[in-house]
Amino acid sequence: MSTIADVAARAGVSKATASRALSGGGYVSAPTREKVRAAASELSYVAHSSATSLATGRSLSVGVIMPALDRWFFAELLAGIQAGLLASGQDLVLYGIRERTAERAQLFEEVLPRRRLDGIIAVGIQPSARELERLIRVESPLVSIGAYSEGTSAVSIDDAGAARIATEHLIDLGHRDIAFLGGTADAATHAFGDERRLAGYRQAMMAAGLAAFVRHADGEPTMPGGYEAAVRMLGDRQSRPTALVAVCDEAAIGAVVGARRLGLSVPAELSIVGIDDHEHAEMFALTTVRQQPRAQGLAAVEVLRRRMDAPDAAPERQVLPSELVVRASTAAPR
Amino acid sequence: MSTIADVAARAGVSKATASRALSGGGYVSAPTREKVRAAASELSYVAHSSATSLATGRSLSVGVIMPALDRWFFAELLAGIQAGLLASGQDLVLYGIRERTAERAQLFEEVLPRRRLDGIIAVGIQPSARELERLIRVESPLVSIGAYSEGTSAVSIDDAGAARIATEHLIDLGHRDIAFLGGTADAATHAFGDERRLAGYRQAMMAAGLAAFVRHADGEPTMPGGYEAAVRMLGDRQSRPTALVAVCDEAAIGAVVGARRLGLSVPAELSIVGIDDHEHAEMFALTTVRQQPRAQGLAAVEVLRRRMDAPDAAPERQVLPSELVVRASTAAPR
Repeated sequence: MSTIADVAARAGVSKATASRALSGGGYVSAPTREKVRAAASELSYVAHSSATSLATGRSLSVGVIMPALDRWFFAELLAGIQAGLLASGQDLVLYGIRERTAERAQLFEEVLPRRRLDGIIAVGIQPSARELERLIRVESPLVSIGAYSEGTSAVSIDDAGAARIATEHLIDLGHRDIAFLGGTADAATHAFGDERRLAGYRQAMMAAGLAAFVRHADGEPTMPGGYEAAVRMLGDRQSRPTALVAVCDEAAIGAVVGARRLGLSVPAELSIVGIDDHEHAEMFALTTVRQQPRAQGLAAVEVLRRRMDAPDAAPERQVLPSELVVRASTAAPR
Repeated sequence: MSTIADVAARAGVSKATASRALSGGGYVSAPTREKVRAAASELSYVAHSSATSLATGRSLSVGVIMPALDRWFFAELLAGIQAGLLASGQDLVLYGIRERTAERAQLFEEVLPRRRLDGIIAVGIQPSARELERLIRVESPLVSIGAYSEGTSAVSIDDAGAARIATEHLIDLGHRDIAFLGGTADAATHAFGDERRLAGYRQAMMAAGLAAFVRHADGEPTMPGGYEAAVRMLGDRQSRPTALVAVCDEAAIGAVVGARRLGLSVPAELSIVGIDDHEHAEMFALTTVRQQPRAQGLAAVEVLRRRMDAPDAAPERQVLPSELVVRASTAAPR
């Protein structure tokens, strides 16, 4: 079995350089890295990450905490984080754990303190004071995506701004009776900006003198949730709004399907705008405000890397832009 | 800072027992494990996984290789694998890498050989001979999900059987002109049973004397792919089939949307059956053959655990059952 000394000798570099080149920890020029990798490959050299880790003080692993794995937004984020970590040779250690579960408590109390991770990316969770205290003890730098508390680094979109863009698009088309669809009234259950989006819709309505029309059909931010909320709100012809701002595209698509079920023509009788630009938005001809979770994932890896290099720097907030994408689900009211 | 000796002293056990209790490696009775954990928690003891790993010879990490993170099937599988690994205190190290990319080659040539993983779960990939050789060198036990080569352990459904169930349901309703929708003709691009499902449809058609009606509209196994393939196949009123077997529910839902776009009534003018029981199947009233990717993920963790305990045992194949779920997208032909 080849040793790191064999690899270093073949590549004509020092053992320390060969180790840095293979571990990704510390600076090595690109040509040298290539030379060492080629030597390692020729010798079928296999370094054990545990030993590398004890030697370099880095585990080359980043923990990613996510409340859901089975929705577009999270899957896209995860793909972005994965791409960012692969590029730097770091492993993605996944903790797919819902908030307020026994597993979540166990994660912060037992699992994370015992793993040596170079950093943690926490998606859409607000670490509690107790959880932050545990993380600080572990000394892993932390970056949040979506949710953010003062004092932690975070990447997100401007949720209120995105909802204002969506609402103003409908107001510009001439709508007045505009309702907000989806998201729950319980602020504690959604760290994902539902509440900030609802607030953005309210701000735009108030600013346009439409306070009297403000209303909210709550529901899960999912296709079935949007479907149910839409059928509930649109059932009565008398009180039906002429337009909906949905909390996200999945809820908006559910509303499109619900409107069809009720025999309502979109956009002739009802305009619907979402927030996301979900992979299925185009198929449903949905007007929406685009966010790019994959870019958010990549940005979080970048922020985390800066925190690993400078753990004592001030927390960093990155707000990524969102833009209106007009398709065929919105039109002037009849 | 507390040491493992402090924890052992407080719990009244040996250092070796305390270490086993905290690492999850080796047998410790449940009450002893609890006692040690409580002591560790009281002392805010933090064991570094790298040190634990060198001591026990186990990394407590399992690598999961997946070609996509952003689709229902994969997300559900990942949730099942995550649940199984959390229960046994093992970390999930995610490698979300598409087949036949530079990243994929790098993963097998450089990344996996350098990490010490207790095992690998490979989703829907057929390791090439060269890749298997690299894995064998690393000595990590391997379990595949979906795809399988002779000589490796695997978990899957009976894909051909699932398609036969779907096709026979339509034949039983009285359909004869039944087409297969979605999946590509290029066998190499889909290790996911598309081809086995197409073969199952063919078998059922032949067995019912309907060979003359066998036809296939190829397309991506996604909602947009099913939509396009359906619009293409259903556009001509003369040659239109009375029923479709879709390669998966996402393609089937795309076909439902495509049929509506063409003004075709489902199921009165067209029956559609999928394979999956996707989370949106109910919303689209889709008749389908249910598979449970979450259960497949859990089963893969179980098979992997047995292989870790007995690396030289014969490869194990687990085939999970699938069952017909009848909703409102299928009916007798007019």
